[in-house]
Formats: sequence, structure tokens, C-alpha cells
Amino acid sequence: MKIAVIGTGNMGAGLARLLAGTGSDVVIGHRDPAKAASFAAELGSNVEAGGIAAAVKLADIVILAVPYGAVAETLKAAGNLKGKVLVDITNPVTSDFRGLVVGHSTSAAEEIQVLAPEATVVKAFNTIFSQLLPVEGRRGKVLQVFVAGDDEKAKDAVSRLAKSAGFEAVDAGPLTNARFLEPIGEMNIHFGFFLGKGPTVAPDWVQV
Amino acid sequence: MKIAVIGTGNMGAGLARLLAGTGSDVVIGHRDPAKAASFAAELGSNVEAGGIAAAVKLADIVILAVPYGAVAETLKAAGNLKGKVLVDITNPVTSDFRGLVVGHSTSAAEEIQVLAPEATVVKAFNTIFSQLLPVEGRRGKVLQVFVAGDDEKAKDAVSRLAKSAGFEAVDAGPLTNARFLEPIGEMNIHFGFFLGKGPTVAPDWVQV
Repeated sequence: MKIAVIGTGNMGAGLARLLAGTGSDVVIGHRDPAKAASFAAELGSNVEAGGIAAAVKLADIVILAVPYGAVAETLKAAGNLKGKVLVDITNPVTSDFRGLVVGHSTSAAEEIQVLAPEATVVKAFNTIFSQLLPVEGRRGKVLQVFVAGDDEKAKDAVSRLAKSAGFEAVDAGPLTNARFLEPIGEMNIHFGFFLGKGPTVAPDWVQV
Repeated sequence: MKIAVIGTGNMGAGLARLLAGTGSDVVIGHRDPAKAASFAAELGSNVEAGGIAAAVKLADIVILAVPYGAVAETLKAAGNLKGKVLVDITNPVTSDFRGLVVGHSTSAAEEIQVLAPEATVVKAFNTIFSQLLPVEGRRGKVLQVFVAGDDEKAKDAVSRLAKSAGFEAVDAGPLTNARFLEPIGEMNIHFGFFLGKGPTVAPDWVQV
């Protein structure tokens, strides 16, 4: 399994570093291949790099780690996504970060599935702040990653990925449940940034 | 502080029993006052009962514990809500319980505030299954109750109520954040009923 991480922002860089560090085979994709190469070199000689389409071509799982507003353009640059598991980690936030631009009758994940019909979209990691991606940032806590999608094999692959990186993977049902997971991500942003808890909180479903 | 609980379904009965048992002054309201009286008698001689408007009139805090579809009719029967804190505990679920009938650009809580402009609406308790209302049902776990609203005094009153019943009250921001809390309640329903965890799960924000 090779994982392409498209994007080198906080989430993309954090996921690439985490996955490379926990034994996954990683390729960094960026519209600027030189930027991807320079970041890959930082992560170690076993991490590959390329333009977006080149990275996608090499990978089985493609993590779309760009802001929601850049998704359409990124997917246009991605080339053939047939047979790829496309992991949507976005929260489709408004410009002030206090609300969502889509919801209720659709979700970012479903919109992405429409834009990339040949890929198998899985929603995951949207409730994990980038600060909590490094293993040491989690200080021994096993955080939950909620995994939603319509294809069980694709969900299993993403769940294994999350587990290999030290998270608990929680089956969150079909892709339409992104309609609930994205508001959970947004509530997490409120707790972290607007309600004083700081970006080291995460939602967790407890079993009594 | 007197608390009116309107409705004697699972949530209404559970909250009335819990609050009466943890020292709150409770009045049960039901469109059938005889039903309210019979349930109040079951809870103890210190619990009052009446029709909906009668219960509301006696109370400082009114917990609206009816299904979302019955809210409009219930508020019509409630009489004067001026000065009352109106606690919305609903999840505005679809008939198959798998989705929400309102969301994204509004929420049940905001719709209730529109229907009852003279009341001060606070969203709370919508992520707690009725099975987890009894103190013994929580088996020593301190569950979080998310409290959203635009009036700090009203939120404080509801937070104190939640704390008196053994919960941790968590400030969830303005009433518009019900747009996120209601999908969290719906995800909780999915975990509890459709994803095999059973109705003894609850969302919890952990601090790493």
C-alpha cells in the first residue's frame, strides 16, 4: 500500500510525517513538484515526491490534504483516480471558520465523490487537529478517528492506516454520515479556537 | 428555581426522575394533567403536576421534552413564556431516525427560539440517551452535557442543573452552534442504534 498525501499544509505535512514515521510507504504530491521533493527529502530518503498526478499514479490511497476550497482544482490536476481510495479529511469551513459552507443535505465528502466518481471516497481524520497528529503530541492518549464510507474494503484500508499511526479507528457508517462528522469537526474547531480549550481537544465516543 | 419538564416520554420521564432525585424542585407538565399527576405521584409527594401552561407558569426553567414534531403544538399550549429559560433537548430526526429534518443554515434550537421569541432558548442534553439519565445508568462515568445559547445567565442556570445531576456541563457557545450539536446527537443515534454500540454511548471532548 502506497499512500499519496496531496498538500503540504499543517494537516498534509503532519499526516505525511506521521505515516512515514510509522512505517507507511508515502509519496508527497504538490502542484509544485520541487516543493514536494524538498519536503519529502526532509522526511527521509524513503519518501517519494512528485506533482499531483504523478503522486496519485503511484498510490493506492490518496489523502486529499488541501483546503476544501482548493479541492475541485486539485482533483482536476489529479488525473486518473480509478481504483484509488480517496481520503477526504476536510472540514468545509466558512472564511471565518465559524460555520460550514455545505451541510445537512450534502457534505464535503459527498461533493468530493461527485467530483471524483471513479474514486472511492472515505471520510476520516477531520476531527483531529494537526497538533495531535504527531505521536508525541498525543501524550499517550489513543484518539478516535471516525471513518465513514460506502465501500467496506476502502474503509478497512483507511482504518488500518489510522491504527498503524496509533489511533483507534471507529466505523462511522456510510459516506452520508459525513453530514454529521463535518459538524463534529466544526464543533471541535469551536472548542479549540473560539471556546478556549486550545487545539489539543478531540471528540471521543465513550461507552458507559 | 423550579423546573418544568414538559412531556413524559423516555427523556421527559428520565429527566424529571433524575432532577427530582437530585434535589431539584420539579413540576411535570402534560396536555393530559391526569397523566402528569399520576407520574408526579410516582416520583414523590414533592413533585407537582399540571397541564402544559400550568406547569410552565410555575417554573423558571422549562425543559421541552417532546419530539421535535410536537414542539410547535406544545409551545402553542405553553402560554406565556416571558422570562422563562426554555431548554431544547431535541434531535430533529427524520422518521427513520437516520437523518435530520433541519440543519446547516438553521437548527431545531433556532426554530424553537423563533416560535417562542419571549423565552430564552438553551440547547442541552441532546447527546445523552435516556438510558444514561439515571445516575446508576452512568456507572460512575461523568458524561458531558453540551450547553449552547446566547444568554450567559440562562446557560449558567442550565449548566448548574446539569452539574447537580452529576454531569459535566460544557460551554458549547452560541445558540447557532446547535447546528453542530444536533448532528452530534444524530451521530450518537447512529453509533447507538445503527452501528452496534447500543444506547449507552455518548460524545465526550477529551483534552490531550
